[in-house]
Amino acid sequence: MSPVILFSAGAERFEVYAEPLRDALRAAGVSPRVVTEAAPEEVDYIVVAPGSGITDFGPYTRCKAVLSLWAGVERMVGNPTLTQPLCRMVDTALEAGMVEYVTGHVLRHHLGMDRFINRPLTGWEAGVPPLASERPVAMLGLGALGRACARALTELGFPVLGWSRSPRDVAGIACHHGAEGLAEVLGRAQIVVTLLPLTPQTENLIDAAALARVPQGAVLINPGRGALIDDDALLAALERGHIGHATLDVFRTEPLPEDHPYRTHPHVTVTPHIAAATRPETASRVIAENVRRGEAGEPFLHLVDRDRGY
Amino acid sequence: MSPVILFSAGAERFEVYAEPLRDALRAAGVSPRVVTEAAPEEVDYIVVAPGSGITDFGPYTRCKAVLSLWAGVERMVGNPTLTQPLCRMVDTALEAGMVEYVTGHVLRHHLGMDRFINRPLTGWEAGVPPLASERPVAMLGLGALGRACARALTELGFPVLGWSRSPRDVAGIACHHGAEGLAEVLGRAQIVVTLLPLTPQTENLIDAAALARVPQGAVLINPGRGALIDDDALLAALERGHIGHATLDVFRTEPLPEDHPYRTHPHVTVTPHIAAATRPETASRVIAENVRRGEAGEPFLHLVDRDRGY
Repeated sequence: MSPVILFSAGAERFEVYAEPLRDALRAAGVSPRVVTEAAPEEVDYIVVAPGSGITDFGPYTRCKAVLSLWAGVERMVGNPTLTQPLCRMVDTALEAGMVEYVTGHVLRHHLGMDRFINRPLTGWEAGVPPLASERPVAMLGLGALGRACARALTELGFPVLGWSRSPRDVAGIACHHGAEGLAEVLGRAQIVVTLLPLTPQTENLIDAAALARVPQGAVLINPGRGALIDDDALLAALERGHIGHATLDVFRTEPLPEDHPYRTHPHVTVTPHIAAATRPETASRVIAENVRRGEAGEPFLHLVDRDRGY
Repeated sequence: MSPVILFSAGAERFEVYAEPLRDALRAAGVSPRVVTEAAPEEVDYIVVAPGSGITDFGPYTRCKAVLSLWAGVERMVGNPTLTQPLCRMVDTALEAGMVEYVTGHVLRHHLGMDRFINRPLTGWEAGVPPLASERPVAMLGLGALGRACARALTELGFPVLGWSRSPRDVAGIACHHGAEGLAEVLGRAQIVVTLLPLTPQTENLIDAAALARVPQGAVLINPGRGALIDDDALLAALERGHIGHATLDVFRTEPLPEDHPYRTHPHVTVTPHIAAATRPETASRVIAENVRRGEAGEPFLHLVDRDRGY
């Protein structure tokens, strides 16, 4: 009997995913039924996204795995009814998109582009920026995305200061860890990129104390998770000019409320959660590969560690 | 007797260069006298920059080489009195700076950053850009700078369409040449970067016909030479929306006149010739190495081919 995949990630998303998902499953050599509604006890796999609607995973007694379309699973990992194996999305296209966003915005700030964009140029003040080799960038988070961004920035000549909570070793990157490592990395970085998973340990990691450590005028780029940042502390640091600019793609509440001060702050750039979109073609291949593995009794890819939270 | 180097690139520049140049000469094992004034017949090498003041090189009868601080020598190459060997600047720091500028502005246009910069964000329209792998970039000019930029863009996933007047072979880049090659490259590029030397053959290369070939909405980035572009044709193409945006760093007249339409055009970004600055430390090493070669009777580096013009 062919396994049943419950696509529980919204009707709109199903319209986009139905075809690439069927193609990917066929290519993986499995032929399940993909449905948007099913009796819980008949479901073999659940494809989910935040706000997918399922809050109680208890009745899905036959379910072999819950497969997330998103890289961040912090909204699901604490659900005590979700006892099935939970897999994150690790999408090569998502990684490529993230590298483009991070590299682009690091270069934008490094080159001081903003003074030329959407405003007429008066005068002829050159103000040649230093080379990338003189601009240390802190990469907070050395998972798949952080490592890929660190590599691209290193390739362009930026000295990258890598940081993760627990020790990591990444070829070509100076890696630091723990509280002491964070203090050192922040103290030397002119551009800080936050690409950490959201866990109880990383929530508000960028608080008033952390912001006070970075050199005067440093720039913050957050394409990771909104709650990594203490928003009030960031606004205060921007207000007194200690932080030169913040480019933010993720927020505690999305869409960001229309009256949120970030939207109009002259030293904040808001992008509407576009840094790394999951793309149906490549994400479907990841889902299909995990279904194939489940059917073959092989270990799942990108399995979430419940203790770490990602 | 120690050779005499006439630094004829302006008093302001001499202030910046005096120390790094002496350091570099010492490191190269030569100990010439560096002067800003000298009787022409006593000069062994001349260091020049555009507007350096020397128009008649005839009296410099002992001069072994004229060493330019700039990569572009189009203002000197046609001077019939300049019969001494003429060397261009090929500075690794200049190359690094150019790669940063080109990569940064290509990513800026690719990611559609401008809609978020220097303006409040209203709404929450995502508009996720395609991946770099779906955004062909034309690199017109495959000299040292063009090749370095092409490599960096390829590394980020952009399909790069290389073009040069005469055939070139660059590893990892699809290379085209000649008039037919230009038509093909322009016809497929969504972003066009012009990094050609200025010669009678490349002047106005980007004219009305060339602009008509690029796909609707394509972006032009010119960090090469101002006169590569027919300004009236570009303004007309911008006016009718065929060219989506132009980011220009170089101009026929610099500083760009205050009333030039480029300065205020909503779809033009003007940067004040900052894409690739010659940096005193690294440029001094190139000058010193050529003086060492001259004294040792070895062939000069970066010798200009008078027929090609660069």
